[in-house]
Amino acid sequence: MTQYTHILVAVDFSDSASSVLSKARQIAEQNKAKLSLLHVVEYLPPIDSAYEPILASNWSIDEQQLLSRADNSLQQLCLQHSLQDAALNVVLGTPKHEITQFVTDHQCDLIVMGSHGRHGISLLLGSTANAVLHEMPCDILAVKIKA
Amino acid sequence: MTQYTHILVAVDFSDSASSVLSKARQIAEQNKAKLSLLHVVEYLPPIDSAYEPILASNWSIDEQQLLSRADNSLQQLCLQHSLQDAALNVVLGTPKHEITQFVTDHQCDLIVMGSHGRHGISLLLGSTANAVLHEMPCDILAVKIKA
Repeated sequence: MTQYTHILVAVDFSDSASSVLSKARQIAEQNKAKLSLLHVVEYLPPIDSAYEPILASNWSIDEQQLLSRADNSLQQLCLQHSLQDAALNVVLGTPKHEITQFVTDHQCDLIVMGSHGRHGISLLLGSTANAVLHEMPCDILAVKIKA
Repeated sequence: MTQYTHILVAVDFSDSASSVLSKARQIAEQNKAKLSLLHVVEYLPPIDSAYEPILASNWSIDEQQLLSRADNSLQQLCLQHSLQDAALNVVLGTPKHEITQFVTDHQCDLIVMGSHGRHGISLLLGSTANAVLHEMPCDILAVKIKA
């Protein structure tokens, strides 16, 4: 019985990534679902707003380097977990916003993420837990990360 | 591929119960998992602590009536969703505590609940979202309730 058709995995590069990816792969296989991986690069520009904005002259190169490195790391994770068929996505931005946007744009019906950690479900919660979960247009699976 | 062996569904009797139960049944079938339903009766004793405690003489009867009515409602829900094999549990207490206790005592590996509503995932969150999810010993699936 198929119930999920497009599963999004919110991936960080911490120790919990393996558990989350492994669980997501099993669910995708059970449901014959498409699997997309999304890593959000959180990059705070080196600007101190109390003073003049200070921007390095090679600013745009740095962003590209960050994205490129994250893309390489994501590709390696996929190889390790035999996820060659998964669609890989690396974007620059705020995780909560980018995850919501991706789910809406690509009509995902399940998000799989870690139950804690820097890129875990707490990203979607914060002080307005109920509101954010209410807004999210699909199911969310928080995978328990064994300490 | 089997990954979940014992699934707990936190059930309320709102309109969202159908979506949650239907999703939980599908996942249980996919995994050939045991399915347990838990409804927590939240009953606040009629005591106004600003004055003397006021207790009705038929206090214990009222509690039994509440539990019995909830048990009947749960049985009817199961019939409606062809869940005759599910284990039914009705307890009196605080949802967050009772759900955590049940999961620990019965070694559940997945909780399925609504993404909002009176008995939705917000019960497990509150102001300490990350801490509670961190403590919960299993995966949690928040099922999106279509408004």
